[in-house]
Amino acid sequence: MDVNEKYFSNISSRERAIFEGAISMGALFHQFVGTPFNKKTAPGLEKAIEESLGLQPAIEKVEVHIDLDRLDKAMTEFEYTSLNGDMLDVKIYSKIDNVLAIIRIEFVEELNYPLMYVEDIIE
Amino acid sequence: MDVNEKYFSNISSRERAIFEGAISMGALFHQFVGTPFNKKTAPGLEKAIEESLGLQPAIEKVEVHIDLDRLDKAMTEFEYTSLNGDMLDVKIYSKIDNVLAIIRIEFVEELNYPLMYVEDIIE
Amino acid sequence: MDVNEKYFSNISSRERAIFEGAISMGALFHQFVGTPFNKKTAPGLEKAIEESLGLQPAIEKVEVHIDLDRLDKAMTEFEYTSLNGDMLDVKIYSKIDNVLAIIRIEFVEELNYPLMYVEDIIE
Amino acid sequence: MDVNEKYFSNISSRERAIFEGAISMGALFHQFVGTPFNKKTAPGLEKAIEESLGLQPAIEKVEVHIDLDRLDKAMTEFEYTSLNGDMLDVKIYSKIDNVLAIIRIEFVEELNYPLMYVEDIIE
Repeated sequence: MDVNEKYFSNISSRERAIFEGAISMGALFHQFVGTPFNKKTAPGLEKAIEESLGLQPAIEKVEVHIDLDRLDKAMTEFEYTSLNGDMLDVKIYSKIDNVLAIIRIEFVEELNYPLMYVEDIIE
Repeated sequence: MDVNEKYFSNISSRERAIFEGAISMGALFHQFVGTPFNKKTAPGLEKAIEESLGLQPAIEKVEVHIDLDRLDKAMTEFEYTSLNGDMLDVKIYSKIDNVLAIIRIEFVEELNYPLMYVEDIIE
Repeated sequence: MDVNEKYFSNISSRERAIFEGAISMGALFHQFVGTPFNKKTAPGLEKAIEESLGLQPAIEKVEVHIDLDRLDKAMTEFEYTSLNGDMLDVKIYSKIDNVLAIIRIEFVEELNYPLMYVEDIIE
Repeated sequence: MDVNEKYFSNISSRERAIFEGAISMGALFHQFVGTPFNKKTAPGLEKAIEESLGLQPAIEKVEVHIDLDRLDKAMTEFEYTSLNGDMLDVKIYSKIDNVLAIIRIEFVEELNYPLMYVEDIIE
């Protein structure tokens, strides 16, 4: 079976790059929010998230930065906290044929919301 | 701030419908996989998933069907099991302006994989 | 195979009631934190969580209350937010033989932490 | 506030070691089930899980082994799969005062179930 032919011939390369990157961003948020971590384990967690989502179809690269100021504010008496979506600053690079889409999540103060959007598309 | 103007003017309505539906599909999978359930609680779980993802931006409707044959095969001595991605058959309807995208996940035997794809786009 | 004999003869009924309730509390937190919801869908989500964890071994009943004041503070421009652990007030009742353990999670201001503890044991 | 005095004086050190280890085992399962991974990323994922749960109260050490035979069987056309509970073989060491509890999860064929139990208690 040709998966691309059977399931993806109804959308363009540009649309599919957006599609695959968006899936992985939704996945990243909902898989890892809630994970116990602190400043010491943050780099390892960032790397594990990058490697995990980097396996999904069309994903070229994932860059995860956890906002350490927000971590500080959420810090508990037990010296760790749970990852929440507001701490995430992530770029996912997805590529189909010659189209590279960069999907971003970052916390937007005015919306009080970690917004996912298409930061750039390079064709 | 006009969110649409600031963050989404670089993509078309059709692309954004795909984008928002794909995010919600990735979210759905990774939020709810692992949830304890059985045949008796399946309808309530399907409804809770539908209501939850239906809140996300641009999502018009979510239809969740859990494959009960796959549930049967996964059933344990303790009369429940964990939801896994292979059991999911879901349609997410996302709409931006006049474009409706239908995002689907279903298990594809040949790929041994719960495939997410764009089932249809109505403009 | 007698599961109880093989795997649980090294602990008392009281210890096992604590054990099973604690597993389900850890499970509840990490399964459902991150779920999109708002005031309108909160009751359905509470019920779905109760039914789900109520299936696990030894669990008699689960009572979930989501703190709507904390929901209000977390509310976004998009009219929903993600469930976080600080919003949870939950009691899990686990019973082994004649011992009933009540496991609780509630947010403790002084610790800035959603604390899990054994609220009561009735023998 | 003395947390131990206020919240944990109703249970013994042995009971609390069991309690804390059980919470972390339930947490581990429901946080990480669903994570995309393959043979290449498995060691990094195991380490990230160990570090994460190792932060929780009373946890001394966490040892995670993912069953690579079960990974092979679940492998997809896309060269990765989702972590499921049946692949987990984990020991969590929790210590309160002089009591060390070893909490285990392993897949038990006869039950078709990833069983959590108290493997040993050293006093």
